Amino acid sequence: MAKRPIKQKQDDIIKTLRWKSGKLELIDQTLLPGKFTYVSCTTAREVWNAIKTMIVRGAPAIGIAGAYGVYLGVRKSKAKDYETFKREVDKTVEYLASCRPTASNLFWALGRMKVLVERNPSAPVAKLKEMLLSQAQAINEEDLEECRSIGEYGKMLLPDWCSVLTHCNAGGLATAGYGTALGIIFSARSKIRNVYVDETRPVLQGARLTMWELTKKGIPATLISDNMAASIMAKKEIDAIIVGADRIVSNGDVANKIGTYNLAVLAKYHKIPFYVAAPTSTFDMSLTTGKYIPIEQRHQDEVKKLAGTFITPAKAKAYNPAFDVTPAKLVTAIITERGVIKRPDKKKMARFMAR
Amino acid sequence: MAKRPIKQKQDDIIKTLRWKSGKLELIDQTLLPGKFTYVSCTTAREVWNAIKTMIVRGAPAIGIAGAYGVYLGVRKSKAKDYETFKREVDKTVEYLASCRPTASNLFWALGRMKVLVERNPSAPVAKLKEMLLSQAQAINEEDLEECRSIGEYGKMLLPDWCSVLTHCNAGGLATAGYGTALGIIFSARSKIRNVYVDETRPVLQGARLTMWELTKKGIPATLISDNMAASIMAKKEIDAIIVGADRIVSNGDVANKIGTYNLAVLAKYHKIPFYVAAPTSTFDMSLTTGKYIPIEQRHQDEVKKLAGTFITPAKAKAYNPAFDVTPAKLVTAIITERGVIKRPDKKKMARFMAR
Repeated sequence: MAKRPIKQKQDDIIKTLRWKSGKLELIDQTLLPGKFTYVSCTTAREVWNAIKTMIVRGAPAIGIAGAYGVYLGVRKSKAKDYETFKREVDKTVEYLASCRPTASNLFWALGRMKVLVERNPSAPVAKLKEMLLSQAQAINEEDLEECRSIGEYGKMLLPDWCSVLTHCNAGGLATAGYGTALGIIFSARSKIRNVYVDETRPVLQGARLTMWELTKKGIPATLISDNMAASIMAKKEIDAIIVGADRIVSNGDVANKIGTYNLAVLAKYHKIPFYVAAPTSTFDMSLTTGKYIPIEQRHQDEVKKLAGTFITPAKAKAYNPAFDVTPAKLVTAIITERGVIKRPDKKKMARFMAR
Repeated sequence: MAKRPIKQKQDDIIKTLRWKSGKLELIDQTLLPGKFTYVSCTTAREVWNAIKTMIVRGAPAIGIAGAYGVYLGVRKSKAKDYETFKREVDKTVEYLASCRPTASNLFWALGRMKVLVERNPSAPVAKLKEMLLSQAQAINEEDLEECRSIGEYGKMLLPDWCSVLTHCNAGGLATAGYGTALGIIFSARSKIRNVYVDETRPVLQGARLTMWELTKKGIPATLISDNMAASIMAKKEIDAIIVGADRIVSNGDVANKIGTYNLAVLAKYHKIPFYVAAPTSTFDMSLTTGKYIPIEQRHQDEVKKLAGTFITPAKAKAYNPAFDVTPAKLVTAIITERGVIKRPDKKKMARFMAR
């Protein structure tokens, strides 16, 4: 796909990923909010590592990074013929697909890169390389547009002067720069009284990244420990919950950062709308239910340590699933770049994707 | 009240508080699990500070510390007559009551110290001092006995080979040495397959203290971030939830560590029994509902910092209530040293306290 001309104001976005002097540059999200710095990737392996170690994280951002990773993996290919080049692309795609198992967008973006090559068997290798880079850049720019669209659709669902709660970081840093759940908050800014931000243990993306983004934009925000959300809901201080998604399957079940399901149950009990904001690249229509979504288990030490220090006996055992699954029945609406799916279920999901 | 002779094996308890060479010694719980050390208190002010800074914490332990604090506050009194001494006791009681507002046991223990003096106007000042020390020691020892009794009552409620979840630390460290919620786990040890332990942000009493106690006793335990509990419940891996309490009011509403209400809602949704373990000294029959319980707000930095480092932009705003209130309707049973109150409500609470 050719790079589309995209016109939009770019002053309010974070350049989570940028292509500069033949390198993919990524904001090192492991160092925020203390330090704002870019790291460079020049190979597929460096991209793999950046995703694995969460230098770049957030389902859409991982997808974009993966797309660039494919190009970086084959740009120095010495393949002379299409078949050899295609095998190298496929191998790179397979390699990059192995770094994190839960978020769909990575597989979706890698699939697009792979299909681009499959569909152009007559193109010379040099041309294919160019096309791969262009497509990675297009995926990045499309994401910006899609997030703004999600923002507009989401804005319409929020009541005026509302207080919302969000979990993890589904902001500019999780995407090309605008955000999904936070994109809605940015688009609906004039309607927002306050944003409660779950710190989101164990990796603290809420405290470190979402608070950084909201503070930067001057949006009133209050950081809370994850376990405080229920008591704030009981006080009727939360009008809506908005989260992102790592994978949404064909019956509307949603995988997202660990703790999301917790919020969905609380939302149900307190009769608060629970919104999931995600581009359709997050959809995986091949799975019939959320129980088939592979849940990444991360190292125990993320739970056992904080800032490098054990917060528990060193030999203690910890559990560290990175995601959980929220059943569709707890979701008030899924907000995508193409519109809103209210009370998602199998039929509505299929109808939406077919239109 | 005279010190009662109490016979019990003491080998399995933690000496959270000990009276030694005329000093109150407290395990410094802010340093666990990294360092096990006692700090000494020789004045009421030192006790006040130890409670305020959470060197000693846990509703029953705070009560015991407060009782010793009264003695320490007046033991060097130069009062010659009863009235003067009584005024000093009352002043010390008032002072100690100001350090933490939520847990009842402190007020209950201080009340006992005050009443002891009120009831003995004919005793010489020197004798009253002796009696105050004896009573503080008795409160400490009674707590051990009560926790063992709670353990026995609680044990009967648990199914065999069960997996339980607990929050914060309602263990030996929160009491004279045996524990309320953990006391049940200790008493029911042979029935326990695994204990899931909420880390309990922001102060991490679960990760730091409960994991330390369980590891020490060789009880299988798994540390989780607070936001993981829901997904573990959804997998049917939790058979019961047991928590402590800081105050239980006359309709059965329960104040306990922030995040407890969160668990109670999750328990309801997943149809898991939710047990509250506490001695009757935690009861405050003067309040008709939990909404009147004063909730201590602690410093924002407990949420904003971890191990001394900001985990969020320094100017970010945070919310830090130390407790939340769980309505009685979400409580399966309150387990006390005097027996069990199933599905507590106003009537059952009154009947229980009257018997």
